[in-house]
Amino acid sequence: MPSFARFTPLLSSLPATVPFVGPEAIERNRGLIVRARIGANESGFGPAPSVVAAMAEAASDTWHYSDPENFELKQALAAHLGCSPTNIAVGEGIDALLGHIVRMIIEPGMPVVTSLGAYPTFNFHVAGYGGRLVTAPYVQDREDLAGLLELVKRENAPLVYFANPDNPMGSWWNADAVAEFAEALPETCLLILDEAYCETAPDGTTPALSRLIDRPNVMRTRTLSKAYGLAGARVGYVITTPENAQAFDKIRNHFGMARISVAGALAALKDQAYLTDVLQKISASRDAISDIARANGLLPLVSATNFVAIDCGRDGAYARAIVDGLMEHGVFIRMPGVAPLNRCIRISTGLPQDMTLLAEALPQVLKTIG
Amino acid sequence: MPSFARFTPLLSSLPATVPFVGPEAIERNRGLIVRARIGANESGFGPAPSVVAAMAEAASDTWHYSDPENFELKQALAAHLGCSPTNIAVGEGIDALLGHIVRMIIEPGMPVVTSLGAYPTFNFHVAGYGGRLVTAPYVQDREDLAGLLELVKRENAPLVYFANPDNPMGSWWNADAVAEFAEALPETCLLILDEAYCETAPDGTTPALSRLIDRPNVMRTRTLSKAYGLAGARVGYVITTPENAQAFDKIRNHFGMARISVAGALAALKDQAYLTDVLQKISASRDAISDIARANGLLPLVSATNFVAIDCGRDGAYARAIVDGLMEHGVFIRMPGVAPLNRCIRISTGLPQDMTLLAEALPQVLKTIG
Repeated sequence: MPSFARFTPLLSSLPATVPFVGPEAIERNRGLIVRARIGANESGFGPAPSVVAAMAEAASDTWHYSDPENFELKQALAAHLGCSPTNIAVGEGIDALLGHIVRMIIEPGMPVVTSLGAYPTFNFHVAGYGGRLVTAPYVQDREDLAGLLELVKRENAPLVYFANPDNPMGSWWNADAVAEFAEALPETCLLILDEAYCETAPDGTTPALSRLIDRPNVMRTRTLSKAYGLAGARVGYVITTPENAQAFDKIRNHFGMARISVAGALAALKDQAYLTDVLQKISASRDAISDIARANGLLPLVSATNFVAIDCGRDGAYARAIVDGLMEHGVFIRMPGVAPLNRCIRISTGLPQDMTLLAEALPQVLKTIG
Repeated sequence: MPSFARFTPLLSSLPATVPFVGPEAIERNRGLIVRARIGANESGFGPAPSVVAAMAEAASDTWHYSDPENFELKQALAAHLGCSPTNIAVGEGIDALLGHIVRMIIEPGMPVVTSLGAYPTFNFHVAGYGGRLVTAPYVQDREDLAGLLELVKRENAPLVYFANPDNPMGSWWNADAVAEFAEALPETCLLILDEAYCETAPDGTTPALSRLIDRPNVMRTRTLSKAYGLAGARVGYVITTPENAQAFDKIRNHFGMARISVAGALAALKDQAYLTDVLQKISASRDAISDIARANGLLPLVSATNFVAIDCGRDGAYARAIVDGLMEHGVFIRMPGVAPLNRCIRISTGLPQDMTLLAEALPQVLKTIG
């Protein structure tokens, strides 16, 4: 049966793709069970007990739409961040917000700059609006700020994506380098500074809000999905100028936020003691992953995130064999999609039992694939 | 401070609007408290206790992203509906799905047909993609099927929106009339058949799935927000051909569904006994609203939905005064936005205590405004 005859040429040209295959699909398709869920940079440490309680309590009010203005959440975020609520736009995870930003700026054929092998969901949205990706290779497993800037100028690009810390490599630049990059951009180019992993980074990684908050060509994206352990809640936000923040109101799904998720986010922001505790656990788990990698003759990269990229020393097919092999043991991990990053596997931090499963499975897998 | 200098001309032309002002904003802006929340066609009867329990239980797993393929939910919906999971696309409420559908079809300047005064959020999305709304007036407070068809043909429109039952009037057509309308459309025009309120309609209102499911120019939208009482969960779905359903994968936010919401939806579909009970309560509450209206000299319209439109017999300013006046008493209701529908107010069904507050407040308000 054909699809509708009059979809736009752009839509018709797109593949029906999924930016990431979920572990549930892998379980279904391969008949396997995930025992260690350490592939999607979720937080196995979970949300705080206070957050779980707040969400459970909010369940009975789910017949209410959530406040379409996200007033209370913006107030809480602003108090937490030290900015004004008018500097904030809220959405269903960073993924939704990235889609909105691309839509705001990109018309078919326009160039968009990112790093080769950076966040696939951003690329998905660029393709979805007909943008043309122009990519700078990673240099020494870091996004190349100078290379990105050069491409922006060469292409007169209206949009550039840069994540700090980076996914999938876990690398980072210091705050000054990031701010200087933002300040060097032409004002005709908007920077998406994706700080999904800012909580897990060393001090000095994240530019002060005040340094960039008045720049109309900077939008910083953050999330409750990573360190706060709320991936399934879908709560992301943008920090930018009030005028830019208001632009989201022109196109967003005003009633798109789940009410329980907002209750969870409010509780999570309040429980900073729990966050501090989780950050220590993430750090310890990064060390554990790195130790396991080294014990197996692999090279862990230094990471500022809740995952560790591990250089397996060979090509993408070899790394893929490790990823697939670990899944046979119930250990779900992922890997970068593009060479030369795809010589690596990417393992999310997790509970001690996850590390035990990884430590047991990895040598067996390496032995099997030879 | 200016916004970013290089937003698209389309974005720059849009107002920063909210399709509906939430009751929370009204409370904040007017310093009032909502005591009867009967304005947004939510379900004061709430989700089933089994649903609340399922969501509370799911809270601790919120660190997992929800399955991006929505496999289990599609299976459950398909079993419930009697179609294939491949006929279904899932999204963050019908609102999100409407946005996707408009995006699939509409390029700037293209005509889109709807009824004058129908769902504002659909119009919001049409404006957001640069479409040109062409509207048929309601006839006798019903959407005018013949008028819509005529406009589609006159404009060679690629998209038409029709809700059955209708919001904001609560009116409806029978299944045959709806199916014949769908079958009479040129195959170059896609029908969005919005059935958000199908559960509350009389038998014979909703065309059998089998009659329309093979038509590539029909997409039916449904939701867990209304009769199922899960407005705050954001779970909507589209029923269409497999090829059309797959088109959503080209552009949707694959990880956009909240995990607890999906758990709630699965539990809600299982608890059909609770739904049956709620439908009786909705019917009784429609009668209660109608009685209150008549007791105050106003004319309730017959409704197939979880709300009642009430003809107040004068103009939009008069109806607005009633809406605003009721809010002074803590009774939150809404009204249609466009003449001549805006001679009406629109009151959602609710609990007996909501009806009591309404019955107390309405005569006082009518007396005050004279």
